[in-house]
Amino acid sequence: MNLESKMTIDQLIREFGRSGCFGAGRLATACDIYERMIRDKECTIFIAIAGAVVPAGLRSIIADLIRRRFVNAVVTTGANIIHDLLEAMGGHHYKGHWNIDDSYLYKSHIFRIYDIFVPEEDFMKEDFEVAKMFDEIAEESKGHIFSSNELMAEIGKRLKDSDSILRASHEAKVPVFVPAIRDSEFGYIHWLHASRNPPKGVLQVDAFKEMSDIINLAANSPRMGMIVLGGGVPRNTVQHTAAIASKGIDYAILITMDRPETGGLSGSTLREATSWGKIKAQADKVTIIGDVLIAFPLIVASVLERLGDEFGREKR
Amino acid sequence: MNLESKMTIDQLIREFGRSGCFGAGRLATACDIYERMIRDKECTIFIAIAGAVVPAGLRSIIADLIRRRFVNAVVTTGANIIHDLLEAMGGHHYKGHWNIDDSYLYKSHIFRIYDIFVPEEDFMKEDFEVAKMFDEIAEESKGHIFSSNELMAEIGKRLKDSDSILRASHEAKVPVFVPAIRDSEFGYIHWLHASRNPPKGVLQVDAFKEMSDIINLAANSPRMGMIVLGGGVPRNTVQHTAAIASKGIDYAILITMDRPETGGLSGSTLREATSWGKIKAQADKVTIIGDVLIAFPLIVASVLERLGDEFGREKR
Amino acid sequence: MNLESKMTIDQLIREFGRSGCFGAGRLATACDIYERMIRDKECTIFIAIAGAVVPAGLRSIIADLIRRRFVNAVVTTGANIIHDLLEAMGGHHYKGHWNIDDSYLYKSHIFRIYDIFVPEEDFMKEDFEVAKMFDEIAEESKGHIFSSNELMAEIGKRLKDSDSILRASHEAKVPVFVPAIRDSEFGYIHWLHASRNPPKGVLQVDAFKEMSDIINLAANSPRMGMIVLGGGVPRNTVQHTAAIASKGIDYAILITMDRPETGGLSGSTLREATSWGKIKAQADKVTIIGDVLIAFPLIVASVLERLGDEFGREKR
Amino acid sequence: MNLESKMTIDQLIREFGRSGCFGAGRLATACDIYERMIRDKECTIFIAIAGAVVPAGLRSIIADLIRRRFVNAVVTTGANIIHDLLEAMGGHHYKGHWNIDDSYLYKSHIFRIYDIFVPEEDFMKEDFEVAKMFDEIAEESKGHIFSSNELMAEIGKRLKDSDSILRASHEAKVPVFVPAIRDSEFGYIHWLHASRNPPKGVLQVDAFKEMSDIINLAANSPRMGMIVLGGGVPRNTVQHTAAIASKGIDYAILITMDRPETGGLSGSTLREATSWGKIKAQADKVTIIGDVLIAFPLIVASVLERLGDEFGREKR
Repeated sequence: MNLESKMTIDQLIREFGRSGCFGAGRLATACDIYERMIRDKECTIFIAIAGAVVPAGLRSIIADLIRRRFVNAVVTTGANIIHDLLEAMGGHHYKGHWNIDDSYLYKSHIFRIYDIFVPEEDFMKEDFEVAKMFDEIAEESKGHIFSSNELMAEIGKRLKDSDSILRASHEAKVPVFVPAIRDSEFGYIHWLHASRNPPKGVLQVDAFKEMSDIINLAANSPRMGMIVLGGGVPRNTVQHTAAIASKGIDYAILITMDRPETGGLSGSTLREATSWGKIKAQADKVTIIGDVLIAFPLIVASVLERLGDEFGREKR
Repeated sequence: MNLESKMTIDQLIREFGRSGCFGAGRLATACDIYERMIRDKECTIFIAIAGAVVPAGLRSIIADLIRRRFVNAVVTTGANIIHDLLEAMGGHHYKGHWNIDDSYLYKSHIFRIYDIFVPEEDFMKEDFEVAKMFDEIAEESKGHIFSSNELMAEIGKRLKDSDSILRASHEAKVPVFVPAIRDSEFGYIHWLHASRNPPKGVLQVDAFKEMSDIINLAANSPRMGMIVLGGGVPRNTVQHTAAIASKGIDYAILITMDRPETGGLSGSTLREATSWGKIKAQADKVTIIGDVLIAFPLIVASVLERLGDEFGREKR
Repeated sequence: MNLESKMTIDQLIREFGRSGCFGAGRLATACDIYERMIRDKECTIFIAIAGAVVPAGLRSIIADLIRRRFVNAVVTTGANIIHDLLEAMGGHHYKGHWNIDDSYLYKSHIFRIYDIFVPEEDFMKEDFEVAKMFDEIAEESKGHIFSSNELMAEIGKRLKDSDSILRASHEAKVPVFVPAIRDSEFGYIHWLHASRNPPKGVLQVDAFKEMSDIINLAANSPRMGMIVLGGGVPRNTVQHTAAIASKGIDYAILITMDRPETGGLSGSTLREATSWGKIKAQADKVTIIGDVLIAFPLIVASVLERLGDEFGREKR
Repeated sequence: MNLESKMTIDQLIREFGRSGCFGAGRLATACDIYERMIRDKECTIFIAIAGAVVPAGLRSIIADLIRRRFVNAVVTTGANIIHDLLEAMGGHHYKGHWNIDDSYLYKSHIFRIYDIFVPEEDFMKEDFEVAKMFDEIAEESKGHIFSSNELMAEIGKRLKDSDSILRASHEAKVPVFVPAIRDSEFGYIHWLHASRNPPKGVLQVDAFKEMSDIINLAANSPRMGMIVLGGGVPRNTVQHTAAIASKGIDYAILITMDRPETGGLSGSTLREATSWGKIKAQADKVTIIGDVLIAFPLIVASVLERLGDEFGREKR
């Protein structure tokens, strides 16, 4: 491997590809796979997002990928959307430190996510604004029962912040699925909203309604691509969708620190998913054991450099 | 540390406590904390279950803990319940091997979970039986909108297998919450059930309805205990419930292989949760970095030995 | 998996073997392999010890295995022997806590090993006593150039503490190899010893001299067994010895938290060693991803229970 | 975090520093620390190298850092030097795959290091050439007893390959210490060399002789910097040297996948070393949990970009 001063990201990645092994070789492979996924016009790209990647700085990168349609569907934890909204409503994530007295933070009304600090005040503002939106949406929708993706679309169209993931998804018509929506601040917000007995009724979200939308999206795709940041429910949902739609995933990139030995889905190998019919045996696939915050920006920067700024994709 | 031939589990754990450090010392601490949790009659014990622990062999241990009310509420992934049902309906989990050709398994209609094999046939039987229950429940309930815990209770009362987690939870009146129910085979079963347009209507599950039940359970508990197997949605739900109910958790045992550095909730320290008001600063707590399948049976066996077979707890 | 009150260790391990998967199944396999290794009278058992297992409490367990000749050769870091000597010379390892101000410990002259505290004073006493032994050995040996195992034998015969690893190895004639002896407090002790220009000369240790002893031991063994606690130099030395002696290892148990992905030897799979001729393709082998302080006492206690207290093995 | 097409490495690292958290923030901190280490003319920079980083592609990067004196002393496993020599003598490391039948590789005389393949033939050629050098050095040195660093210097001056670490260290007068030299192919080579009873005598390497050289280097340094790739013996040696020389390390960068919980030195926190007086409480330090093959080239490329090609440092 040779380094030069002022190398671009993709030049380094190509060095990794030529002469780097272990993690370096796999990172280079991931860039190649993502490039092929994007260039394949018949591929619907699902991104599964778990872990606190939005608070940690990937928000505008993800919004940008949505706008370019370098991802065609987002499956995420509720938390990442809540933090997207927190910033959209003027809140901030501050760089802090992990080694601090948490009872001091508690008394100071500051929440910690590893080395990120979030003021309780910013959370409360966001909770209040979203609860108001819930009132509004319930009123407008007159008893409509929502899927998580419909609710995300309703929120997205009300936002103005162009760096927002939900705003970008509204503009690009890229659906955002939140399968465990109740397990997030959305749960609290809904509980608040419902507790105050809104005169125009309580917003209703059906646990299963999103199933048909995401299954149809997969079923109508000639090919499926999957990018997993982390694991958890988002990864499982995308893989399970592929199985129900009788599609095997064709391209897969997994970036995680989870390992197979303890048997959980998050750390399971991509190969294991082949036994379930979720990922094709011949899929173009790679696993990176590493920090999403380092690996994913490198992959995206490398691919943007290869494709150029103008490259765009159609809605799927 | 001294070993003797024919030592009991608790004798070894006490050796770990006296003279073992690193993981051994922490495991001994976990046994002490669980004993104190159980002896504290005013403590409501929540168990959060993620990872494939039911297929891997913990099913009857968990059912037994429910029956003794050594846990008072279960928060779990859908998958663990599905595998509980699979066994309740006559299916099996087979010991296999992780290093096998998964495309061969696929062709053989065998699903793999690390080193466990599950015949597709057993899954189909379970799917079919549960879908039939869904038809039945939809018919009986006449438009009732269910929470995940209500649905689990409905299923539990229909089961006969005394080793079943859902059956035990029905008998002991221990609620089972499945916050991400849609992200599991339940999603597929519901989709099947709904696709065939059941004449008596489709079973409806509200994504948020369980919120008030779990929050009230926490709010009415003088003290809260938490045992986490794995992490993910179940851990987050229990911790988040504590915050919404304005309760800090008093006792916490975390068994996981996830680590804090990548910032995800699953690997976050118990201490971090203090900044959010989820776990009290003075909580009696311990984290074991290790395999749930080894650590949890050791803890339970040690505590059973300490308390004796007759020890029981009341419903909370 | 079924638990009973007052189960013995081996009863639990047999439950793990019957119905436990993931780590539990592998732990049961490790017990079976260790039992077979011991029952195989033609197998020379090498134990490779890295990590701070002696300070953490495994000292008397290892000494006991040596005395029963359930291990026939020890390959270890210098640090584990130093901590064996520290206890033999009256020093102590105290249970402390990992989350403490290390500059406060520094000012208090207390050294920390994760959650173990060691007073500097105990170290100094041990350093002083061992340096005195070095003077003595240099004097007695009159220019003899030592291998690490010869030096360990010289020290072992001077000890009285029956819980000592070196004392037990002297009694049972089980050699102790310390391939990286210089990278430990032995390095400092030797530097002290040499700095004061001992009148009878400086003790000389040849870096390579132990090679022929360990290679011959392997070469003369009909079968080789290997137990690895941790990884590092001790694991590599045992595996490399097998290759040089043109022996493939027949039985292997690896307990570690290291993983293959970053390419280091410590985390490499046992299977990888087959390509080098170090471990036979058909070897009876298992890897446990877990804490040595939990897994190894469980394995030893289970095997002691199976074999009974009287079972002993011959010198090899 | 914002990405642009054709970003340079340092531009991305600065984005990581401004708005990235978790691993991204730490990686940016590591670049800042390395820049400060290099700009501090009174700092002696020790690099500790474990893991198969030379086979995996970092050879010429390390040789280049030596030549610029961006490192002033190397402490490494024997294996990394052996693989440096293998390439210097015309051998190759091939990109292979980790998931392959190792008994097939064995029969094909190909050794595997995770996803790297090395032909046995290339190893034999290197072994033969180095053994010949051993004969030569033994002859020339007439009974001189070597330290590991003296031996490395003897080999380095005999090499021609300008990409070689040992050649670069010879040219730049940067010492290379191999504390566990016996635990590597050097052990086999020496055994070969000694077995054939060389007429001019056997090359002698003293296990402890390097102590005074490395201690003096540390003792004469106004400040000490440490970069750890991996852990193991090299990390311990550098830290232990600081303690013996009564120096606390001033700057430290640790890149590893090892974790503190199991108590081994490799995964211990930098903070723990403060209790031992090895790292100053106020040291400028950071730990990156990640793949050395990804993180280290990023750090070096970023620092080269900041300092420019002309920046050099003096011998220390």
